[in-house]
Amino acid sequence: MSLLSKNKIKYIRSLELKKIRKEEKVFLAEGPKLVGDLLGHFPCCFLAATSSWLQEHVSVPADEVAEVSQDELSRASLLKTPQQVLAVFKQPEYTIDTNMLRNSLCLALDDVQDPGNLGTIIRLADWFGIEDIFCSLNTVDVYNPKTVQATMGGIARVKVHYTPLPDLIGSLDNIPVYGTFLDGENMYEQQLSRNGLIVMGNEGNGISKEVEILINRKLYIPNYPQERETSESLNVAIATAVVCAEFRRQAASF
Amino acid sequence: MSLLSKNKIKYIRSLELKKIRKEEKVFLAEGPKLVGDLLGHFPCCFLAATSSWLQEHVSVPADEVAEVSQDELSRASLLKTPQQVLAVFKQPEYTIDTNMLRNSLCLALDDVQDPGNLGTIIRLADWFGIEDIFCSLNTVDVYNPKTVQATMGGIARVKVHYTPLPDLIGSLDNIPVYGTFLDGENMYEQQLSRNGLIVMGNEGNGISKEVEILINRKLYIPNYPQERETSESLNVAIATAVVCAEFRRQAASF
Repeated sequence: MSLLSKNKIKYIRSLELKKIRKEEKVFLAEGPKLVGDLLGHFPCCFLAATSSWLQEHVSVPADEVAEVSQDELSRASLLKTPQQVLAVFKQPEYTIDTNMLRNSLCLALDDVQDPGNLGTIIRLADWFGIEDIFCSLNTVDVYNPKTVQATMGGIARVKVHYTPLPDLIGSLDNIPVYGTFLDGENMYEQQLSRNGLIVMGNEGNGISKEVEILINRKLYIPNYPQERETSESLNVAIATAVVCAEFRRQAASF
Repeated sequence: MSLLSKNKIKYIRSLELKKIRKEEKVFLAEGPKLVGDLLGHFPCCFLAATSSWLQEHVSVPADEVAEVSQDELSRASLLKTPQQVLAVFKQPEYTIDTNMLRNSLCLALDDVQDPGNLGTIIRLADWFGIEDIFCSLNTVDVYNPKTVQATMGGIARVKVHYTPLPDLIGSLDNIPVYGTFLDGENMYEQQLSRNGLIVMGNEGNGISKEVEILINRKLYIPNYPQERETSESLNVAIATAVVCAEFRRQAASF
């Protein structure tokens, strides 16, 4: 059991930076619910917790454990309100196998920029049984602490891959590739498949041209009432949820 | 045309605080899209913009207009990346008329705490043609700058009321009042009404006991595959979107 040195605090806080996370191949998670969810799934290099948390967790599967005061925890934490425990986990390494798209539904994110949006999408993918998300190389880093927190543990079950989307989609043969567009077909009038890829675009610019030409099924989420003129749009995580819910509603009912 | 005094910058930045917003009965909005959307809807007390924005907007309906440098704008702005224009608007005053619940679908929020969640819910309410949202008194302030920004203009079209929810719901006669619960009925197997109230709960604790007993139709958003054990949940804005989408899908198809 070690205390929290100044260097350790500095190291933990430095994990806010993508460059450091990438070099160290680790990421930070905070709070009893999230750390609890991740402890079984990813190797834990370091964990710092208050004595009360440690008393409830007798055997902690971490390389190093520090008992800390609330004050020490606050100095290391990136949260506004630090919560009993934080931990540094090793980033997993996944391999991409596009064959799974023959049987499974997956998401692709084309330059989603907001860490909270990515985390929320991972959380809802977990809810809707989507096990793989393919992100364009310019999509925000899944190990951004804000993303990790917003997944609420979904990051332990949903595999996130980074890969150039045009290459990935271009390599697919006879796989449905969906995307949402203002000029797409009303998704409620389509028979949606149980497999394939749903592409969601950047917050401001939507799906890029290079990816759009590779999409073979354009969908539209109808607003209500449909007659109403609207210049509005939905947040990307919201749109992802509404689309995934409809895919799963149809899959469960046909 | 005035310049931006130190006092003015201090005043604008103080609108981050609910206390000041409440005293002054105003709120802050930033960016060309949002300010443009709001200018026609709310009286504008003050607007600060760069010369390029002002050149494109010859007649600005604001009590006071200041041309500012990018540097001055940055000092006044609450955004990480300030965008050409910010404006202070008068808060609207709405009256509550529950009769509208006989014909319209509305939302009620029971202590939603996150400003971004509230803003996202207002934005999606706008998309789904929901014109009124009733918030419990402990729900986050709709005029929180983060909320205003997240509405993406929806705040101009969706009326947000603050009122004790038990009193409001208790006063309703023969109106469907829905809420989502883990032990609710699969919402896809229910015939959902075109009017009434959908109650959504707090991020951590869901719907309060006082409100729960007043709900007459408990719904459940099915996860997928349904056989899967899950201890997971959906973010409140995501759950709101999935529920509203299903209400509107049914309304449009029956």
